[in-house]
Amino acid sequence: MSEVPSRLTFRLSYGDCDALGIAYFAMFYPWMERTYSGWLYGRGIHSADLIGEFGVYTVGMRSACRYLMQCQVFDELTCQAVLDHVGTTSYTVGFDFLRGDDLVAHGEIVFAVRTPDGAKAPIPGGILDALRSLPPSTLAES
Amino acid sequence: MSEVPSRLTFRLSYGDCDALGIAYFAMFYPWMERTYSGWLYGRGIHSADLIGEFGVYTVGMRSACRYLMQCQVFDELTCQAVLDHVGTTSYTVGFDFLRGDDLVAHGEIVFAVRTPDGAKAPIPGGILDALRSLPPSTLAES
Amino acid sequence: MSEVPSRLTFRLSYGDCDALGIAYFAMFYPWMERTYSGWLYGRGIHSADLIGEFGVYTVGMRSACRYLMQCQVFDELTCQAVLDHVGTTSYTVGFDFLRGDDLVAHGEIVFAVRTPDGAKAPIPGGILDALRSLPPSTLAES
Amino acid sequence: MSEVPSRLTFRLSYGDCDALGIAYFAMFYPWMERTYSGWLYGRGIHSADLIGEFGVYTVGMRSACRYLMQCQVFDELTCQAVLDHVGTTSYTVGFDFLRGDDLVAHGEIVFAVRTPDGAKAPIPGGILDALRSLPPSTLAES
Repeated sequence: MSEVPSRLTFRLSYGDCDALGIAYFAMFYPWMERTYSGWLYGRGIHSADLIGEFGVYTVGMRSACRYLMQCQVFDELTCQAVLDHVGTTSYTVGFDFLRGDDLVAHGEIVFAVRTPDGAKAPIPGGILDALRSLPPSTLAES
Repeated sequence: MSEVPSRLTFRLSYGDCDALGIAYFAMFYPWMERTYSGWLYGRGIHSADLIGEFGVYTVGMRSACRYLMQCQVFDELTCQAVLDHVGTTSYTVGFDFLRGDDLVAHGEIVFAVRTPDGAKAPIPGGILDALRSLPPSTLAES
Repeated sequence: MSEVPSRLTFRLSYGDCDALGIAYFAMFYPWMERTYSGWLYGRGIHSADLIGEFGVYTVGMRSACRYLMQCQVFDELTCQAVLDHVGTTSYTVGFDFLRGDDLVAHGEIVFAVRTPDGAKAPIPGGILDALRSLPPSTLAES
Repeated sequence: MSEVPSRLTFRLSYGDCDALGIAYFAMFYPWMERTYSGWLYGRGIHSADLIGEFGVYTVGMRSACRYLMQCQVFDELTCQAVLDHVGTTSYTVGFDFLRGDDLVAHGEIVFAVRTPDGAKAPIPGGILDALRSLPPSTLAES
Protein backbone atom coordinates (compact mmCIF):
# COMPACT_ATOMS: atom_id res chain seq x y z
CA MET A 1 0.00 0.00 0.00
CA SER A 2 2.68 2.44 -1.05
CA GLU A 3 -0.08 4.92 -1.85
CA VAL A 4 -0.63 5.72 1.83
CA PRO A 5 1.70 8.62 2.59
CA SER A 6 4.03 8.16 5.54
CA ARG A 7 5.23 11.74 5.45
CA LEU A 8 3.93 15.24 6.08
CA THR A 9 5.32 18.47 4.69
CA PHE A 10 4.87 21.77 6.51
CA ARG A 11 6.37 25.23 6.65
CA LEU A 12 7.71 26.38 10.01
CA SER A 13 5.46 29.12 11.35
CA TYR A 14 6.04 31.60 14.16
CA GLY A 15 4.39 29.28 16.62
CA ASP A 16 6.94 26.56 15.82
CA CYS A 17 9.87 28.84 16.60
CA ASP A 18 11.19 30.14 19.89
CA ALA A 19 12.18 33.59 21.07
CA LEU A 20 15.55 33.18 19.36
CA GLY A 21 13.94 32.72 15.95
CA ILE A 22 14.91 29.08 15.52
CA ALA A 23 12.74 25.96 15.54
CA TYR A 24 11.66 25.21 19.11
CA PHE A 25 13.13 21.88 20.17
CA ALA A 26 9.79 20.50 21.41
CA MET A 27 7.97 21.37 18.19
CA PHE A 28 9.22 18.23 16.45
CA TYR A 29 7.35 15.81 18.72
CA PRO A 30 3.75 16.66 17.80
CA TRP A 31 4.76 16.41 14.13
CA MET A 32 6.08 12.89 14.76
CA GLU A 33 2.76 11.86 16.30
CA ARG A 34 0.76 13.60 13.57
CA THR A 35 2.75 11.77 10.89
CA TYR A 36 2.50 8.40 12.63
CA SER A 37 -1.19 8.55 13.58
CA GLY A 38 -2.23 9.87 10.19
CA TRP A 39 -0.23 7.22 8.37
CA LEU A 40 -1.72 4.38 10.45
CA TYR A 41 -5.17 5.90 9.99
CA GLY A 42 -4.60 5.98 6.23
CA ARG A 43 -3.91 2.26 6.39
CA GLY A 44 -7.15 1.63 8.22
CA ILE A 45 -5.61 1.31 11.68
CA HIS A 46 -7.25 3.60 14.20
CA SER A 47 -4.72 3.88 16.99
CA ALA A 48 -7.42 4.75 19.55
CA ASP A 49 -9.17 1.45 18.88
CA LEU A 50 -6.36 -1.07 18.72
CA ILE A 51 -8.00 -3.15 21.45
CA GLY A 52 -11.10 -3.55 19.31
CA GLU A 53 -9.11 -4.41 16.20
CA PHE A 54 -6.23 -6.45 17.60
CA GLY A 55 -7.01 -7.20 21.25
CA VAL A 56 -3.91 -5.30 22.35
CA TYR A 57 -2.87 -1.69 22.62
CA THR A 58 0.40 0.18 22.37
CA VAL A 59 2.01 2.52 24.87
CA GLY A 60 4.72 5.03 24.18
CA MET A 61 7.76 3.99 26.23
CA ARG A 62 10.25 6.57 25.10
CA SER A 63 10.68 9.40 22.65
CA ALA A 64 13.79 11.22 21.53
CA CYS A 65 15.03 13.70 18.97
CA ARG A 66 18.49 14.59 17.69
CA TYR A 67 18.94 18.06 16.25
CA LEU A 68 21.40 18.04 13.35
CA MET A 69 20.92 21.43 11.68
CA GLN A 70 19.26 24.59 12.89
CA CYS A 71 15.91 25.41 11.30
CA GLN A 72 14.30 28.81 10.99
CA VAL A 73 10.87 30.25 10.50
CA PHE A 74 9.47 29.55 6.99
CA ASP A 75 11.81 26.63 6.33
CA GLU A 76 9.85 23.87 4.62
CA LEU A 77 10.32 20.54 6.39
CA THR A 78 9.16 17.04 5.58
CA CYS A 79 8.63 14.56 8.39
CA GLN A 80 9.10 11.05 7.00
CA ALA A 81 8.24 8.05 9.16
CA VAL A 82 10.91 5.35 8.85
CA LEU A 83 11.44 1.92 10.29
CA ASP A 84 14.02 2.07 13.04
CA HIS A 85 13.58 -1.24 14.85
CA VAL A 86 11.11 -4.10 15.15
CA GLY A 87 11.36 -6.31 18.22
CA THR A 88 8.99 -8.98 19.44
CA THR A 89 6.81 -6.95 21.81
CA SER A 90 7.94 -3.46 20.93
CA TYR A 91 8.98 -1.40 17.93
CA THR A 92 10.63 1.92 17.19
CA VAL A 93 9.35 4.27 14.55
CA GLY A 94 11.88 6.83 13.40
CA PHE A 95 11.16 10.21 11.89
CA ASP A 96 13.52 11.85 9.44
CA PHE A 97 13.00 15.59 9.26
CA LEU A 98 14.26 16.76 5.89
CA ARG A 99 14.81 20.24 4.47
CA GLY A 100 15.36 19.54 0.81
CA ASP A 101 18.03 16.82 0.85
CA ASP A 102 19.33 17.74 4.29
CA LEU A 103 18.45 15.66 7.31
CA VAL A 104 17.90 18.38 9.93
CA ALA A 105 16.60 16.21 12.78
CA HIS A 106 15.87 12.59 13.56
CA GLY A 107 13.23 11.60 16.06
CA GLU A 108 11.98 8.29 17.36
CA ILE A 109 9.16 6.87 19.42
CA VAL A 110 9.36 3.43 21.04
CA PHE A 111 6.02 1.65 21.32
CA ALA A 112 5.38 -1.40 23.49
CA VAL A 113 2.50 -3.80 22.85
CA ARG A 114 0.32 -4.72 25.83
CA THR A 115 -2.74 -6.85 26.50
CA PRO A 116 -5.69 -5.17 28.21
CA ASP A 117 -4.35 -6.41 31.57
CA GLY A 118 -0.92 -4.90 30.91
CA ALA A 119 1.12 -7.95 29.93
CA LYS A 120 3.61 -7.82 27.08
CA ALA A 121 2.22 -9.09 23.80
CA PRO A 122 3.57 -9.72 20.29
CA ILE A 123 3.14 -7.02 17.64
CA PRO A 124 -0.12 -7.72 15.75
CA GLY A 125 0.29 -8.80 12.12
CA GLY A 126 -1.57 -5.77 10.81
CA ILE A 127 0.84 -3.40 12.52
CA LEU A 128 3.85 -5.48 11.46
CA ASP A 129 2.73 -5.25 7.83
CA ALA A 130 2.38 -1.50 8.15
CA LEU A 131 5.79 -1.11 9.80
CA ARG A 132 7.49 -3.19 7.11
CA SER A 133 6.11 -0.85 4.44
CA LEU A 134 8.08 2.05 5.92
CA PRO A 135 11.36 3.06 4.31
CA PRO A 136 14.62 2.76 6.29
CA SER A 137 16.07 5.89 7.82
CA THR A 138 18.51 7.99 5.84
CA LEU A 139 20.47 8.14 9.07
CA ALA A 140 23.07 5.36 9.16
CA GLU A 141 23.04 5.05 12.92
CA SER A 142 20.77 6.80 15.36
CA MET B 1 -14.36 29.07 49.54
CA SER B 2 -11.92 31.85 48.92
CA GLU B 3 -9.14 29.39 49.67
CA VAL B 4 -9.46 27.77 46.25
CA PRO B 5 -7.15 29.74 43.99
CA SER B 6 -8.66 31.05 40.77
CA ARG B 7 -5.34 32.21 39.41
CA LEU B 8 -2.07 30.78 38.15
CA THR B 9 1.28 32.54 38.00
CA PHE B 10 3.93 31.55 35.48
CA ARG B 11 7.03 32.93 33.85
CA LEU B 12 7.05 33.17 30.07
CA SER B 13 9.47 30.62 28.66
CA TYR B 14 10.96 30.32 25.18
CA GLY B 15 8.19 27.98 24.15
CA ASP B 16 5.59 30.66 24.97
CA CYS B 17 7.25 33.20 22.71
CA ASP B 18 7.42 33.45 18.96
CA ALA B 19 10.28 34.03 16.55
CA LEU B 20 10.07 37.76 17.23
CA GLY B 21 10.76 37.29 20.94
CA ILE B 22 7.32 38.31 22.15
CA ALA B 23 4.56 36.26 23.72
CA TYR B 24 2.91 34.14 21.04
CA PHE B 25 -0.74 35.22 20.66
CA ALA B 26 -2.08 31.66 20.93
CA MET B 27 -0.15 30.93 24.12
CA PHE B 28 -2.75 32.63 26.29
CA TYR B 29 -5.54 30.18 25.51
CA PRO B 30 -4.13 27.02 27.13
CA TRP B 31 -3.39 29.10 30.24
CA MET B 32 -7.03 30.17 30.37
CA GLU B 33 -8.16 26.54 30.25
CA ARG B 34 -5.52 25.48 32.79
CA THR B 35 -6.67 28.20 35.19
CA TYR B 36 -10.37 27.43 34.71
CA SER B 37 -10.15 23.63 34.87
CA GLY B 38 -7.81 23.66 37.86
CA TRP B 39 -9.98 26.14 39.72
CA LEU B 40 -13.15 24.09 39.16
CA TYR B 41 -11.25 20.94 40.12
CA GLY B 42 -10.12 22.63 43.32
CA ARG B 43 -13.77 23.25 44.14
CA GLY B 44 -14.61 19.60 43.60
CA ILE B 45 -16.07 20.00 40.12
CA HIS B 46 -14.48 17.65 37.61
CA SER B 47 -15.25 19.20 34.25
CA ALA B 48 -14.93 15.86 32.45
CA ASP B 49 -17.71 14.38 34.58
CA LEU B 50 -20.34 17.13 34.68
CA ILE B 51 -22.96 14.72 33.32
CA GLY B 52 -22.43 12.42 36.29
CA GLU B 53 -22.52 15.28 38.79
CA PHE B 54 -25.14 17.59 37.31
CA GLY B 55 -26.85 15.74 34.46
CA VAL B 56 -25.64 18.34 31.98
CA TYR B 57 -22.37 19.25 30.31
CA THR B 58 -20.85 22.45 29.01
CA VAL B 59 -19.50 23.21 25.57
CA GLY B 60 -17.16 26.01 24.62
CA MET B 61 -19.01 28.27 22.19
CA ARG B 62 -16.47 31.01 21.71
CA SER B 63 -13.09 32.14 22.94
CA ALA B 64 -11.34 35.46 22.49
CA CYS B 65 -8.33 37.41 23.69
CA ARG B 66 -7.44 41.10 23.57
CA TYR B 67 -3.76 41.96 23.68
CA LEU B 68 -3.16 45.18 25.59
CA MET B 69 0.60 45.24 26.22
CA GLN B 70 3.42 43.29 24.63
CA CYS B 71 4.97 40.59 26.80
CA GLN B 72 8.44 39.14 26.53
CA VAL B 73 10.29 36.02 27.52
CA PHE B 74 10.78 35.78 31.33
CA ASP B 75 7.96 38.20 32.14
CA GLU B 76 6.01 36.86 35.11
CA LEU B 77 2.30 36.77 34.38
CA THR B 78 -0.70 35.92 36.53
CA CYS B 79 -3.82 34.55 34.88
CA GLN B 80 -6.80 35.43 37.09
CA ALA B 81 -10.21 33.95 36.29
CA VAL B 82 -12.93 36.60 36.62
CA LEU B 83 -16.68 36.65 36.21
CA ASP B 84 -17.59 38.28 32.91
CA HIS B 85 -21.23 37.31 32.44
CA VAL B 86 -23.80 34.86 33.76
CA GLY B 87 -26.83 34.17 31.58
CA THR B 88 -29.52 31.53 31.99
CA THR B 89 -28.08 28.73 29.85
CA SER B 90 -24.58 30.08 29.24
CA TYR B 91 -21.85 31.99 31.02
CA THR B 92 -18.63 33.77 30.20
CA VAL B 93 -15.49 33.35 32.24
CA GLY B 94 -12.96 36.12 31.76
CA PHE B 95 -9.23 35.89 32.30
CA ASP B 96 -7.17 38.89 33.34
CA PHE B 97 -3.50 38.45 32.51
CA LEU B 98 -1.53 40.68 34.84
CA ARG B 99 2.15 41.64 34.90
CA GLY B 100 2.49 43.30 38.25
CA ASP B 101 -0.36 45.81 38.28
CA ASP B 102 -0.61 45.99 34.50
CA LEU B 103 -3.38 44.23 32.65
CA VAL B 104 -1.51 42.90 29.63
CA ALA B 105 -4.28 40.81 28.08
CA HIS B 106 -7.90 39.86 28.69
CA GLY B 107 -9.32 36.58 27.50
CA GLU B 108 -12.72 35.01 27.69
CA ILE B 109 -14.42 31.69 27.08
CA VAL B 110 -18.18 31.40 26.61
CA PHE B 111 -19.65 28.13 27.89
CA ALA B 112 -23.14 26.86 27.03
CA VAL B 113 -24.95 24.29 29.18
CA ARG B 114 -26.50 21.33 27.41
CA THR B 115 -28.44 18.21 28.35
CA PRO B 116 -27.05 14.87 27.13
CA ASP B 117 -29.34 15.09 24.08
CA GLY B 118 -28.04 18.54 23.23
CA ALA B 119 -30.87 20.81 24.44
CA LYS B 120 -30.14 24.07 26.27
CA ALA B 121 -30.26 23.75 30.04
CA PRO B 122 -29.96 26.11 33.01
CA ILE B 123 -26.57 26.51 34.71
CA PRO B 124 -26.37 23.99 37.58
CA GLY B 125 -26.38 25.50 41.09
CA GLY B 126 -22.94 24.12 41.88
CA ILE B 127 -21.40 25.89 38.92
CA LEU B 128 -23.36 29.08 39.64
CA ASP B 129 -21.98 29.13 43.18
CA ALA B 130 -18.47 28.71 41.85
CA LEU B 131 -18.89 31.44 39.22
CA ARG B 132 -20.24 33.88 41.82
CA SER B 133 -17.11 33.37 43.92
CA LEU B 134 -14.97 34.81 41.12
CA PRO B 135 -13.85 38.43 41.31
CA PRO B 136 -15.00 40.90 38.66
CA SER B 137 -12.61 41.83 35.87
CA THR B 138 -10.24 44.73 36.35
CA LEU B 139 -11.20 45.64 32.79
CA ALA B 140 -14.11 48.10 32.81
CA GLU B 141 -15.52 46.90 29.51
CA SER B 142 -14.33 44.02 27.40
CA MET C 1 -1.87 35.76 -7.73
CA SER C 2 -4.61 33.24 -7.11
CA GLU C 3 -1.95 30.54 -7.30
CA VAL C 4 -0.72 31.33 -3.77
CA PRO C 5 -2.76 29.08 -1.49
CA SER C 6 -4.55 30.80 1.37
CA ARG C 7 -5.62 27.55 2.98
CA LEU C 8 -4.09 24.59 4.76
CA THR C 9 -5.58 21.12 5.11
CA PHE C 10 -4.71 18.87 8.02
CA ARG C 11 -6.02 15.84 9.84
CA LEU C 12 -6.70 16.22 13.56
CA SER C 13 -4.15 14.22 15.50
CA TYR C 14 -4.15 13.15 19.15
CA GLY C 15 -2.17 16.21 20.09
CA ASP C 16 -4.93 18.45 18.69
CA CYS C 17 -7.60 16.82 20.83
CA ASP C 18 -8.27 17.03 24.53
CA ALA C 19 -8.91 14.42 27.18
CA LEU C 20 -12.54 14.22 26.08
CA GLY C 21 -11.59 13.17 22.56
CA ILE C 22 -12.73 16.34 20.84
CA ALA C 23 -10.71 19.10 19.18
CA TYR C 24 -9.06 21.22 21.87
CA PHE C 25 -10.45 24.76 21.70
CA ALA C 26 -6.99 26.38 21.66
CA MET C 27 -5.73 24.19 18.82
CA PHE C 28 -7.40 26.37 16.18
CA TYR C 29 -5.24 29.44 16.88
CA PRO C 30 -1.83 28.16 15.79
CA TRP C 31 -3.47 26.89 12.59
CA MET C 32 -4.78 30.41 11.92
CA GLU C 33 -1.29 31.85 12.29
CA ARG C 34 0.26 29.06 10.22
CA THR C 35 -2.23 29.69 7.42
CA TYR C 36 -1.80 33.48 7.54
CA SER C 37 1.99 33.60 7.81
CA GLY C 38 2.49 30.96 5.13
CA TRP C 39 0.09 32.68 2.77
CA LEU C 40 1.82 36.07 3.19
CA TYR C 41 5.18 34.37 2.81
CA GLY C 42 3.98 32.75 -0.43
CA ARG C 43 3.17 36.22 -1.71
CA GLY C 44 6.67 37.43 -0.89
CA ILE C 45 5.75 39.21 2.34
CA HIS C 46 7.90 38.11 5.25
CA SER C 47 5.90 39.11 8.30
CA ALA C 48 9.04 39.29 10.47
CA ASP C 49 10.52 41.95 8.21
CA LEU C 50 7.62 44.29 7.51
CA ILE C 51 9.63 47.25 8.83
CA GLY C 52 12.30 46.61 6.22
CA GLU C 53 9.77 46.16 3.42
CA PHE C 54 7.10 48.70 4.31
CA GLY C 55 8.46 50.87 7.14
CA VAL C 56 5.67 49.71 9.45
CA TYR C 57 4.84 46.59 11.36
CA THR C 58 1.64 44.91 12.47
CA VAL C 59 0.57 43.90 15.95
CA GLY C 60 -2.13 41.43 16.84
CA MET C 61 -4.80 43.32 18.78
CA ARG C 62 -7.36 40.61 19.25
CA SER C 63 -8.09 37.04 18.32
CA ALA C 64 -11.28 35.05 18.61
CA CYS C 65 -12.84 31.77 17.57
CA ARG C 66 -16.44 30.57 17.40
CA TYR C 67 -17.01 26.83 17.64
CA LEU C 68 -19.92 25.74 15.46
CA MET C 69 -19.60 21.94 15.28
CA GLN C 70 -17.66 19.50 17.39
CA CYS C 71 -14.60 17.97 15.73
CA GLN C 72 -12.93 14.70 16.57
CA VAL C 73 -9.58 13.04 16.15
CA PHE C 74 -8.84 12.17 12.47
CA ASP C 75 -11.37 14.64 11.08
CA GLU C 76 -9.83 16.37 8.06
CA LEU C 77 -10.14 20.14 8.35
CA THR C 78 -9.26 22.94 5.97
CA CYS C 79 -8.35 26.35 7.37
CA GLN C 80 -9.18 28.98 4.74
CA ALA C 81 -8.07 32.57 5.29
CA VAL C 82 -10.86 34.99 4.36
CA LEU C 83 -11.25 38.75 4.31
CA ASP C 84 -13.32 39.84 7.27
CA HIS C 85 -12.69 43.59 7.43
CA VAL C 86 -10.31 46.22 6.08
CA GLY C 87 -10.11 49.51 7.95
CA THR C 88 -7.65 52.37 7.52
CA THR C 89 -5.04 51.42 10.11
CA SER C 90 -6.18 47.90 10.97
CA TYR C 91 -7.63 44.84 9.32
CA THR C 92 -9.26 41.58 10.32
CA VAL C 93 -8.36 38.29 8.72
CA GLY C 94 -10.96 35.58 9.20
CA PHE C 95 -10.39 31.85 9.14
CA ASP C 96 -13.07 29.44 8.03
CA PHE C 97 -12.46 25.94 9.32
CA LEU C 98 -14.24 23.52 7.02
CA ARG C 99 -14.89 19.79 7.30
CA GLY C 100 -16.11 18.93 3.82
CA ASP C 101 -18.82 21.51 3.19
CA ASP C 102 -19.47 22.16 6.87
CA LEU C 103 -18.16 25.27 8.56
CA VAL C 104 -17.06 23.87 11.92
CA ALA C 105 -15.37 26.97 13.36
CA HIS C 106 -14.65 30.57 12.43
CA GLY C 107 -11.65 32.40 13.78
CA GLU C 108 -10.33 35.90 13.36
CA ILE C 109 -7.25 37.95 14.11
CA VAL C 110 -7.29 41.75 14.18
CA PHE C 111 -4.02 43.35 13.11
CA ALA C 112 -3.13 47.01 13.68
CA VAL C 113 -0.48 48.81 11.61
CA ARG C 114 2.12 50.79 13.50
CA THR C 115 5.18 52.89 12.70
CA PRO C 116 8.45 51.95 14.43
CA ASP C 117 7.67 54.53 17.14
CA GLY C 118 4.25 53.02 17.76
CA ALA C 119 1.94 55.48 15.97
CA LYS C 120 -1.01 54.27 13.91
CA ALA C 121 -0.24 54.02 10.21
CA PRO C 122 -2.20 53.16 7.05
CA ILE C 123 -2.14 49.60 5.72
CA PRO C 124 0.73 49.32 3.18
CA GLY C 125 -0.35 48.81 -0.43
CA GLY C 126 1.38 45.45 -0.66
CA ILE C 127 -0.62 44.09 2.25
CA LEU C 128 -3.84 45.66 0.95
CA ASP C 129 -3.35 43.91 -2.38
CA ALA C 130 -2.82 40.63 -0.60
CA LEU C 131 -5.88 41.08 1.62
CA ARG C 132 -8.10 41.91 -1.35
CA SER C 133 -7.11 38.64 -3.00
CA LEU C 134 -8.69 36.68 -0.14
CA PRO C 135 -12.17 35.22 -0.60
CA PRO C 136 -15.02 36.44 1.63
CA SER C 137 -16.10 34.29 4.55
CA THR C 138 -18.74 31.63 4.06
CA LEU C 139 -20.14 32.90 7.33
CA ALA C 140 -22.81 35.54 6.72
CA GLU C 141 -22.19 37.37 9.96
CA SER C 142 -19.44 36.73 12.46
CA MET D 1 22.01 29.47 46.03
CA SER D 2 19.65 26.69 47.07
CA GLU D 3 16.90 29.28 47.29
CA VAL D 4 16.53 29.36 43.51
CA PRO D 5 13.91 26.73 42.70
CA SER D 6 14.90 24.15 40.11
CA ARG D 7 11.45 22.65 39.96
CA LEU D 8 7.95 23.55 38.81
CA THR D 9 4.70 22.03 39.98
CA PHE D 10 1.62 21.98 37.79
CA ARG D 11 -1.67 20.16 37.44
CA LEU D 12 -2.32 18.37 34.17
CA SER D 13 -5.04 20.20 32.26
CA TYR D 14 -7.11 19.09 29.29
CA GLY D 15 -4.66 20.67 26.92
CA ASP D 16 -1.87 18.49 28.32
CA CYS D 17 -3.79 15.29 27.64
CA ASP D 18 -4.60 13.52 24.42
CA ALA D 19 -7.82 12.10 23.02
CA LEU D 20 -7.35 8.97 25.12
CA GLY D 21 -7.40 10.97 28.37
CA ILE D 22 -3.76 10.41 29.28
CA ALA D 23 -0.86 12.83 29.36
CA TYR D 24 0.22 13.59 25.78
CA PHE D 25 3.77 12.31 25.27
CA ALA D 26 5.01 15.61 23.79
CA MET D 27 3.64 17.68 26.67
CA PHE D 28 6.63 16.90 28.88
CA TYR D 29 9.15 18.73 26.68
CA PRO D 30 7.93 22.32 27.06
CA TRP D 31 7.82 21.74 30.84
CA MET D 32 11.47 20.68 30.76
CA GLU D 33 12.41 23.90 28.95
CA ARG D 34 10.21 26.02 31.22
CA THR D 35 11.85 24.50 34.29
CA TYR D 36 15.38 24.86 32.91
CA SER D 37 15.06 28.40 31.52
CA GLY D 38 13.28 29.70 34.60
CA TRP D 39 15.83 28.14 36.92
CA LEU D 40 18.79 29.64 35.02
CA TYR D 41 16.96 32.97 34.89
CA GLY D 42 16.46 32.81 38.66
CA ARG D 43 20.22 32.45 39.00
CA GLY D 44 20.81 35.52 36.87
CA ILE D 45 21.65 33.65 33.67
CA HIS D 46 19.56 34.79 30.74
CA SER D 47 19.80 31.95 28.26
CA ALA D 48 19.04 34.27 25.32
CA ASP D 49 22.08 36.37 26.13
CA LEU D 50 24.79 33.83 26.88
CA ILE D 51 27.03 35.35 24.22
CA GLY D 52 26.94 38.69 26.01
CA GLU D 53 27.58 37.14 29.41
CA PHE D 54 29.97 34.31 28.59
CA GLY D 55 31.10 34.75 24.98
CA VAL D 56 29.57 31.41 24.05
CA TYR D 57 26.11 30.01 23.50
CA THR D 58 24.50 26.62 23.94
CA VAL D 59 22.62 24.55 21.41
CA GLY D 60 20.26 21.69 22.13
CA MET D 61 21.77 18.56 20.58
CA ARG D 62 19.29 15.97 21.73
CA SER D 63 16.22 15.58 23.88
CA ALA D 64 14.54 12.45 25.16
CA CYS D 65 11.87 11.29 27.56
CA ARG D 66 11.11 7.92 29.13
CA TYR D 67 7.53 7.31 30.24
CA LEU D 68 7.39 5.21 33.39
CA MET D 69 3.82 5.56 34.61
CA GLN D 70 0.69 6.78 32.88
CA CYS D 71 -0.56 10.20 33.97
CA GLN D 72 -4.07 11.52 33.71
CA VAL D 73 -5.84 14.85 33.62
CA PHE D 74 -5.68 16.66 37.00
CA ASP D 75 -2.67 14.69 38.25
CA GLU D 76 -0.30 17.07 40.01
CA LEU D 77 3.24 16.71 38.68
CA THR D 78 6.52 18.26 39.73
CA CYS D 79 9.26 18.70 37.14
CA GLN D 80 12.61 18.71 38.97
CA ALA D 81 15.77 19.59 37.05
CA VAL D 82 18.60 17.23 37.97
CA LEU D 83 22.21 16.85 36.97
CA ASP D 84 22.60 13.98 34.55
CA HIS D 85 26.06 14.53 33.08
CA VAL D 86 28.72 17.22 32.81
CA GLY D 87 31.31 16.82 30.05
CA THR D 88 33.90 19.29 28.84
CA THR D 89 32.00 20.99 26.03
CA SER D 90 28.52 19.65 26.66
CA TYR D 91 26.22 18.76 29.52
CA THR D 92 22.98 16.90 30.06
CA VAL D 93 20.23 18.26 32.27
CA GLY D 94 17.77 15.64 33.43
CA PHE D 95 14.18 16.20 34.45
CA ASP D 96 12.45 13.99 36.99
CA PHE D 97 8.68 14.18 36.70
CA LEU D 98 7.23 13.20 40.05
CA ARG D 99 3.65 12.49 41.13
CA GLY D 100 3.96 12.41 44.89
CA ASP D 101 6.85 10.01 45.46
CA ASP D 102 6.46 8.27 42.11
CA LEU D 103 8.79 8.99 39.26
CA VAL D 104 6.38 9.01 36.32
CA ALA D 105 8.76 10.18 33.58
CA HIS D 106 12.38 11.15 33.12
CA GLY D 107 13.46 13.58 30.45
CA GLU D 108 16.79 14.97 29.37
CA ILE D 109 18.23 17.66 27.16
CA VAL D 110 21.83 17.60 25.96
CA PHE D 111 23.37 21.04 25.49
CA ALA D 112 26.60 21.72 23.59
CA VAL D 113 28.66 24.86 24.15
CA ARG D 114 29.75 26.77 21.04
CA THR D 115 31.70 29.91 20.27
CA PRO D 116 30.00 32.50 18.02
CA ASP D 117 31.72 30.94 15.00
CA GLY D 118 30.42 27.49 15.91
CA ALA D 119 33.51 25.84 17.43
CA LYS D 120 33.24 23.66 20.54
CA ALA D 121 33.99 25.52 23.75
CA PRO D 122 34.29 24.61 27.44
CA ILE D 123 31.29 25.08 29.72
CA PRO D 124 31.50 28.60 31.25
CA GLY D 125 32.16 28.68 34.99
CA GLY D 126 28.87 30.39 35.74
CA ILE D 127 26.91 27.60 34.10
CA LEU D 128 29.09 24.93 35.73
CA ASP D 129 28.34 26.40 39.16
CA ALA D 130 24.65 26.38 38.40
CA LEU D 131 24.72 22.79 37.13
CA ARG D 132 26.59 21.59 40.22
CA SER D 133 23.87 23.02 42.43
CA LEU D 134 21.32 20.66 40.89
CA PRO D 135 20.39 17.48 42.76
CA PRO D 136 21.15 14.08 41.21
CA SER D 137 18.36 12.18 39.53
CA THR D 138 16.22 9.80 41.56
CA LEU D 139 16.60 7.47 38.60
CA ALA D 140 19.54 5.12 39.12
CA GLU D 141 20.33 4.75 35.45
CA SER D 142 18.73 6.57 32.56
